[in-house]
Amino acid sequence: MAKQKPSIPQGTRDFSPEVMVKRNFIFDTVKKVFQKFGFLPLETPAMEKLEVLTGKYGEEGDQLIFKILNSGDFLSKTTPADIEEGSKKLSFKISEKALRYDLTVPFARFVAMNQGTLSFPFKRYQIQPVWRGDAPQRGRYREFYQCDADVVGTNSIICEAEIVLMINEVMQNLNIGDISIKINHRKILSGIAEVIGAKGNESSLFVAIDKLDKVSKEKVIQELIGRGFTEDSIKKLEPFFENPSLEQLKTLLADSETGKKGIEEIEQMYAYLDCFEKDVDYRLDFSPLLARGLSYYTGAIFEVKANNVSIGSICGGGRYDNLTGAFGLPDMSGVGISFGIDRIYDVMEELQLFPDSTQNSTQALLVNFDSESEKYVLGVLKKLRDQQIACEIYPTSVKLDKQLKYANAKKIPFVILIGSDEINTGLLTIKDMSNRTEEKLKLEDIILKLKK
Amino acid sequence: MAKQKPSIPQGTRDFSPEVMVKRNFIFDTVKKVFQKFGFLPLETPAMEKLEVLTGKYGEEGDQLIFKILNSGDFLSKTTPADIEEGSKKLSFKISEKALRYDLTVPFARFVAMNQGTLSFPFKRYQIQPVWRGDAPQRGRYREFYQCDADVVGTNSIICEAEIVLMINEVMQNLNIGDISIKINHRKILSGIAEVIGAKGNESSLFVAIDKLDKVSKEKVIQELIGRGFTEDSIKKLEPFFENPSLEQLKTLLADSETGKKGIEEIEQMYAYLDCFEKDVDYRLDFSPLLARGLSYYTGAIFEVKANNVSIGSICGGGRYDNLTGAFGLPDMSGVGISFGIDRIYDVMEELQLFPDSTQNSTQALLVNFDSESEKYVLGVLKKLRDQQIACEIYPTSVKLDKQLKYANAKKIPFVILIGSDEINTGLLTIKDMSNRTEEKLKLEDIILKLKK
Repeated sequence: MAKQKPSIPQGTRDFSPEVMVKRNFIFDTVKKVFQKFGFLPLETPAMEKLEVLTGKYGEEGDQLIFKILNSGDFLSKTTPADIEEGSKKLSFKISEKALRYDLTVPFARFVAMNQGTLSFPFKRYQIQPVWRGDAPQRGRYREFYQCDADVVGTNSIICEAEIVLMINEVMQNLNIGDISIKINHRKILSGIAEVIGAKGNESSLFVAIDKLDKVSKEKVIQELIGRGFTEDSIKKLEPFFENPSLEQLKTLLADSETGKKGIEEIEQMYAYLDCFEKDVDYRLDFSPLLARGLSYYTGAIFEVKANNVSIGSICGGGRYDNLTGAFGLPDMSGVGISFGIDRIYDVMEELQLFPDSTQNSTQALLVNFDSESEKYVLGVLKKLRDQQIACEIYPTSVKLDKQLKYANAKKIPFVILIGSDEINTGLLTIKDMSNRTEEKLKLEDIILKLKK
Repeated sequence: MAKQKPSIPQGTRDFSPEVMVKRNFIFDTVKKVFQKFGFLPLETPAMEKLEVLTGKYGEEGDQLIFKILNSGDFLSKTTPADIEEGSKKLSFKISEKALRYDLTVPFARFVAMNQGTLSFPFKRYQIQPVWRGDAPQRGRYREFYQCDADVVGTNSIICEAEIVLMINEVMQNLNIGDISIKINHRKILSGIAEVIGAKGNESSLFVAIDKLDKVSKEKVIQELIGRGFTEDSIKKLEPFFENPSLEQLKTLLADSETGKKGIEEIEQMYAYLDCFEKDVDYRLDFSPLLARGLSYYTGAIFEVKANNVSIGSICGGGRYDNLTGAFGLPDMSGVGISFGIDRIYDVMEELQLFPDSTQNSTQALLVNFDSESEKYVLGVLKKLRDQQIACEIYPTSVKLDKQLKYANAKKIPFVILIGSDEINTGLLTIKDMSNRTEEKLKLEDIILKLKK
């Protein structure tokens, strides 16, 4: 077989141990908070039936779904006419399965499929990779993890309040203190559409104003004109650009029942937050023009930013009313949140927030001097591991320098050296790799030192 | 959009929370042991370039690789002639990526690709799903997790000894006490081939004797005859069916340098185990005819069975000399072990070995009586969570009976009831769902009870 210079597909990544221990720190932190709030783990297959996925992400999304070629003689189920119809139509004849595009649709499929046995409200979290055939670019990958928690089967606003609590707790435990949680409500947006006389054009309005984050108000107005909104509508939209408070909105949306309902639900969420604990700064930033792209949201929407890092939102979510409708289970209200692991990782790297403990998972390297000391060292290794200390012996007796380099490369903080002196006296040499100091200690004391 | 009755692809599975908490118990146990022995986590992409995977698993394996259809107009790179050549050839024109088939080849690809920056010996563990287009049957899936640890870049037999230690520790921590670890050495097998006059036909010999586990000695001999082995060879093979000891093998393989080298390495492994701790029963079962299917093994081989459960091997591994050779990095010796999570799960279910703590991850449900008590309860919830107690409130004030059913279905062990009495006295009612007893306790005492 010809020797290959190996590489990986565009837009995918290997995660080396050094990166993995940091990623695991984020995953573990998020998981712990999800569990504390009563969410339980769920996993679904990487492959879904193609018909489960198509039609759920819009025309553009459908193009980005990775399809799996049918096994065996896939051409046998096609006709020459199928091939003449081109790639797009043919793909559905030679492919029945596809890689999941997100965790939300598989979750909805799972809920609908198991509605008879699940007990509602059903709270699950799910941390798995998803795949999208996007053009790869900085920070955008073809394989990336999503990290979602959802509760379905209840419209209680307590769930919205708990999402705010979870976001705050995750960010605090990750040491990302300086965040803002933008919130809004789809009914407030509908109310705005209503009072500016743009009822029926909500989607178009939302798409345009969703860009306020990236472009100026003037550009958004230009786009609205381009999208056919009237001068009158745009004039009526003016006060909403001033970031009105909930109180001010009550006046502005006085004529919209839908809008008032949205305000009421946001106020209810604030009230619940107050019940959990009074006078806490949850870093909420009510943003009446926040829209978020996803069309399935129907209630509160959330978006989290790390201040001082220009990277876009690191977390987002909202309430939806009919996610499982496509799978034959209507009227299943739910609310969910998704943490963007890759961006959180980048924020933590930029702000140097990863704790030292995530950098070294092996505590000690035991040096291998020769076949005589090796035998003794294995016994020591056993005793350290019995104390749950992660450690290893260099497997061959190469030069000390090489063994120390290995410890350094692997960020192992302590090296234990055991030669004939140490064997005779029972005092083992332990070297602190951070400052290169050495001391001689009994095994019991080394254990105490390493367990710290 | 038409409503669908949703389902998942054949051979794939959803893992419900109830199953996930048990699977996570296994994953966490294995991970902890890997880490204790100095292995660090690695993740590779689900998709590899097709050329990385093909040619590595034999003709049959190649057929089982799931290929990913190229995005966009995949037909544009084909000619009518390509289509006439049939599915197999066409698949390579319309598909450049495929789902990984195991973790070993991606690991070898990673090592070869990053040889300049890795420090050797490189010890990694990897727990990720793999995909195979096998015909689904009981216990065989198209998506399943592998759970591997490998060390490459050293031929030290200490690594073999540590694999035995890791297997024992994992099984002990999972409470699967009654196991046997079959071991053998490919050089012993080569030695056998040599002394029976079948040098050059090792693969054919190994395939036949590997079935000894499932079929009788007579059937294996029949197969050997069918495969063209001479009467003389088969006669000379006779003593090896008697499960000779290492000492006996020294005589039987006296004429094979290769065979003697194999015996020496197994003895070296035993000696190292003795250095770790004397006189331990590692449940080793030296089996000179154990072959294991995989062609890349060149040294020691391992296979673990749970006694009293008929399910095949639950763990296996061995040493290889040239795994990275196909990727341009020759002579990289390594040894690895793979735990079969699905089978371990089945063994633990059958023997009821999952600890109670894996059954309930939410500790308490707080009942929701009405909007008045709800407010008070949220404050209690906050205080419990501050103590790292996983708990939740039923989000709406439905009938008590329904809320208790929810707690039962979710296996939540305690329910806390807070009505006006409880609010006035500060004594909260806590119900133990295992025996339906109730008591009234101050919040501090409830915290103590739940933290136990």
